[in-house]
Amino acid sequence: MNSVPGNTTASGFSVAPVPGIAMIESGDDLAAIIAAALGAADIELNNGDIVCVAQKIVSKAEGQTVSLADVTPSLEAIELARETEKDPRLVELILNESTELLRKKPGVLIMRHRLGLVGAHAGVDQSNIEHGEVENALLLPKDPDASAARLKAELEERLAIKLGVLITDSTNRPWRLGTVGTAIGSAGITVLDDYRGGVDIYGRELKVTLVNRADALAGAATLVMGETTEKIPVVIISGLPPETSTDTARQINRPLEEDLFR
Amino acid sequence: MNSVPGNTTASGFSVAPVPGIAMIESGDDLAAIIAAALGAADIELNNGDIVCVAQKIVSKAEGQTVSLADVTPSLEAIELARETEKDPRLVELILNESTELLRKKPGVLIMRHRLGLVGAHAGVDQSNIEHGEVENALLLPKDPDASAARLKAELEERLAIKLGVLITDSTNRPWRLGTVGTAIGSAGITVLDDYRGGVDIYGRELKVTLVNRADALAGAATLVMGETTEKIPVVIISGLPPETSTDTARQINRPLEEDLFR
Repeated sequence: MNSVPGNTTASGFSVAPVPGIAMIESGDDLAAIIAAALGAADIELNNGDIVCVAQKIVSKAEGQTVSLADVTPSLEAIELARETEKDPRLVELILNESTELLRKKPGVLIMRHRLGLVGAHAGVDQSNIEHGEVENALLLPKDPDASAARLKAELEERLAIKLGVLITDSTNRPWRLGTVGTAIGSAGITVLDDYRGGVDIYGRELKVTLVNRADALAGAATLVMGETTEKIPVVIISGLPPETSTDTARQINRPLEEDLFR
Repeated sequence: MNSVPGNTTASGFSVAPVPGIAMIESGDDLAAIIAAALGAADIELNNGDIVCVAQKIVSKAEGQTVSLADVTPSLEAIELARETEKDPRLVELILNESTELLRKKPGVLIMRHRLGLVGAHAGVDQSNIEHGEVENALLLPKDPDASAARLKAELEERLAIKLGVLITDSTNRPWRLGTVGTAIGSAGITVLDDYRGGVDIYGRELKVTLVNRADALAGAATLVMGETTEKIPVVIISGLPPETSTDTARQINRPLEEDLFR
């Protein structure tokens, strides 16, 4: 974490798309594909730049696509599917991915994902999936922080610079309409900027001590990706000072005992 | 709203601080102060740029500072203050600003503000307030969308270009640690980007239809403002195409009947 209030972003930053990323398939080498796209677009990265990658292409590359034809729903899934007017096989996947059901209504299942992420349908996605006769679903990466760390190491080796990597996903929130991007995987950046011990401009101790830097950056990146994130699944944030943070996105999860909305 | 998916941000954008904004006091002309600071820093704005302004300086300029010495807490406020270990006068202000108490615990009151915003303490702020013998609190602007529209008109007249204006505030969220910036007032930008009727790259109809563009932009801007937002209370987002949207930040509020977390 960073101890000097506001210094990680004080000079501003830019968010730019990486064009030319082709359709990603299971087993694809994302680092090689991103490095090639950067080269083809003449985009030169600098130390401290953050490579933001849409969850969908990470999941696809890691083989997280599931054929619904291969899913046998449990009795619990069948009942919950009836209540929420969903495909029982999809509900089975959602339950498998989750540790807790928080709210349900027709069309909506708000779950706590095993990664600690709270959102609709435990991140199980039916849109932007290749489909023919068989319908597929796409799960979140198994360990997005590990995916980010791996991608960071591989890109740094290829490009010979120090980078940050964020894996982003679009989520809904309880009281505000519209999706925003959040960070589900992170490597090499300050995720929660810690202002504890800082003082305000009047010398009063700051009450707000943690700023969620990763989510704000992921939100900006996701906007540039657009909703059809597979068209622009990679975005570069530049202009930030280089960092050596070992933070992970998992640290963002509010501890269960602090959760007032279970 | 915008009908072409992703086209409002597809080319990326930049976020940059406006240095040299002096301490704001009640009655100050924010448009004049911002225009002067832009001039002094040699920052030239372009059509479509978004001027992001921290709620704190809007509230201060609009005289939303309240002296706690002038507040007489009600019996309800005294009781709630005891339960939550807060100053009864502050709780009185919080109750006056709110339509609904959602959750409480020692140190925390999650309220629905009369503007529809859900968050801690109804936006009533004790930090970064000038304090001597008398303690003050700062309330949110009375009508942040109107404040944004006014500031937009005044800045456009001074600078002879078309701008967007966002009034930003830092908020906490239920399941994720750390504050992120959100849009509490907006003028001249697409707040909720509507993808209804759009298709994904496989021709499948998009399920996620609303993207909260205003909150993502506000989050990026708030990061550059830093936590001590009165040091850098104004940030410029540039590189986006000019817009003619009549959206307001109030449109972001999820309808009460859709709220699963009351």
